[in-house]
Amino acid sequence: MPDFSIGVDLGGTNLRIAAVSAAGELLEKVEVTTKLALGRDHVIHEMCTAIQVLSGKYEKTGSFRGVGIGIPGLMEVQSGTVLKAANLPGWENYAVRAEIERRLGLPKNAARVVLENDARVAALGEQWLGAGRGVENMAILTLGTGIGGGIVLGGKIWHGVNGMAGEFGHVTIEPEGPRCGCGNRGCAEQYASAGAIVRMAREAIDGVEAVALAQGAASGAEFGAKAIYDLVLGGDLDARRIFQTVGWALGILLADLVNVLNLEMFVIGGGVSRAWDAFAPRMFEELRQRSVVYAATVPFDPGKDNVFSRETADQSERDAERRTIITQARLGGDAGLYGATRLPWLSD
Amino acid sequence: MPDFSIGVDLGGTNLRIAAVSAAGELLEKVEVTTKLALGRDHVIHEMCTAIQVLSGKYEKTGSFRGVGIGIPGLMEVQSGTVLKAANLPGWENYAVRAEIERRLGLPKNAARVVLENDARVAALGEQWLGAGRGVENMAILTLGTGIGGGIVLGGKIWHGVNGMAGEFGHVTIEPEGPRCGCGNRGCAEQYASAGAIVRMAREAIDGVEAVALAQGAASGAEFGAKAIYDLVLGGDLDARRIFQTVGWALGILLADLVNVLNLEMFVIGGGVSRAWDAFAPRMFEELRQRSVVYAATVPFDPGKDNVFSRETADQSERDAERRTIITQARLGGDAGLYGATRLPWLSD
Repeated sequence: MPDFSIGVDLGGTNLRIAAVSAAGELLEKVEVTTKLALGRDHVIHEMCTAIQVLSGKYEKTGSFRGVGIGIPGLMEVQSGTVLKAANLPGWENYAVRAEIERRLGLPKNAARVVLENDARVAALGEQWLGAGRGVENMAILTLGTGIGGGIVLGGKIWHGVNGMAGEFGHVTIEPEGPRCGCGNRGCAEQYASAGAIVRMAREAIDGVEAVALAQGAASGAEFGAKAIYDLVLGGDLDARRIFQTVGWALGILLADLVNVLNLEMFVIGGGVSRAWDAFAPRMFEELRQRSVVYAATVPFDPGKDNVFSRETADQSERDAERRTIITQARLGGDAGLYGATRLPWLSD
Repeated sequence: MPDFSIGVDLGGTNLRIAAVSAAGELLEKVEVTTKLALGRDHVIHEMCTAIQVLSGKYEKTGSFRGVGIGIPGLMEVQSGTVLKAANLPGWENYAVRAEIERRLGLPKNAARVVLENDARVAALGEQWLGAGRGVENMAILTLGTGIGGGIVLGGKIWHGVNGMAGEFGHVTIEPEGPRCGCGNRGCAEQYASAGAIVRMAREAIDGVEAVALAQGAASGAEFGAKAIYDLVLGGDLDARRIFQTVGWALGILLADLVNVLNLEMFVIGGGVSRAWDAFAPRMFEELRQRSVVYAATVPFDPGKDNVFSRETADQSERDAERRTIITQARLGGDAGLYGATRLPWLSD
């Protein structure tokens, strides 16, 4: 029976724990709401109980490699400490790994418990079992409330000297653009995140003409990026213009990343990526015009950028063309969970 | 006696060939003008003759590892073919490696002759013997007529899927900025290269007030980035403003690169880097304000950014602080020659 590891996707809303075989087959998944209000000890307790139940059950049939945990925030990977986590109040400067090792009775620092940032585990998940299967060098852009990023080189997460590589959301798009919480102006996150989409819609409403957007905002229903995308589908031009801006910013961001890294693949995930049809044409147009590396290596084929980007080419086609693939994520909300499960297999 | 390799720096103006020991000691250097007008066969002949003289001489005392060649242009590293080389007319689609192997009587594809782009060999040279000695993960920005770039990860050049990684000069600074030859607008190269400095000076002259710049341009002497920097040293405010723009663009570019890659070190080389005092203060100001990763990991210490950046901290200080170092190149025009010499030692 299969050797396995356990992955944890600790979100501000849901806590998900899965046992997955070394080959990537899901054995069992547990999902509960993250009861942050009850304190971090409660959350850790619930997490460790589920880990123990799953590991006890599957250890009867295979060897247990360890636990990988994806956490939304900044962490010191080596010490297993959360440094900052805006959506997990009370978790700052918390030595999560040591606490979990203690509760599970695992030996310290034995690489059996591995912490990682959530955007980076999503990159690893897509590389292992999703859009990037078989691709050694790739990156993911996660378009959520903000924009997260992760780089995988040689099949492993690229951390950088401070464990902070992959902050794609804070690449400058316009030097004098809107202020960003990071201290910069005109960051990609200010144009292509769900938060930015809502901000741009409200700015359009404050103008004179955006009737449908104003109705949407006033309707009482949740006025988020999804509602604005629905207006695009209904033919609203004001909403469409907003997603053109999303595509424009993503095109500039991708052009920068392709020119700098020349990776085999860039995967776009997160909730906003579901509005692909609304932003992708403009994104590819900007990318082709602005990246000398992309234009030199990906033959122009009207319409094909889009098609190609949806259906990842198979390995032989990629090898033959050595072209840059820009594609949607495939694992949806499970990328982080699978990526977390992969972590113990990569640590020494 | 020492084992050695031979490095070749093939420039549009000079052809330099050096025998260097495995430990990085210069054994002997030959320099001639590149006689491009006599055709590529002549240049290759002159190069191979020098290689044979040097290798014959030092093979008496040590083992000859091979030849590394830095070439200004785009090449396919695997096949050893130059694809594009604006400054080497007639060299496009030329299988340089095969020709050199033939002339030297070396076995084919035995990794004894290695071709590489000149900006990337400069990165390798600085990493091996210059500012980045002992730094495994770093990048170089070469500010010349254009802007070249090179990334070294784990002590080896990072090529990317098409061998085109490191095109830092074409990262977008302003989406609607000046047109660039690459097809994009507002590339870093349009603000921080020697070519851009001269263009900005001419734009200032076309305005109303730039008296000293206009005199410089009309003086009959060569009106280049160096002459404009001399005006800065003489206190001219118009010239100073130009180098402020250089610093502004480099700060944005570095902020992007630090946020994406989080490397240990970024080295700034090329002719324009000699005007460090004129652009560095503004560069560090922008970098600190715009890069959340830099600001979070490099303690603010007024004036020290500058000092620190000049004097590379020693290894222990780097290890302790794990801070991003931004520093001037140290090997000057020799970086490419030394980096080329290093190539045969890194190939398998």
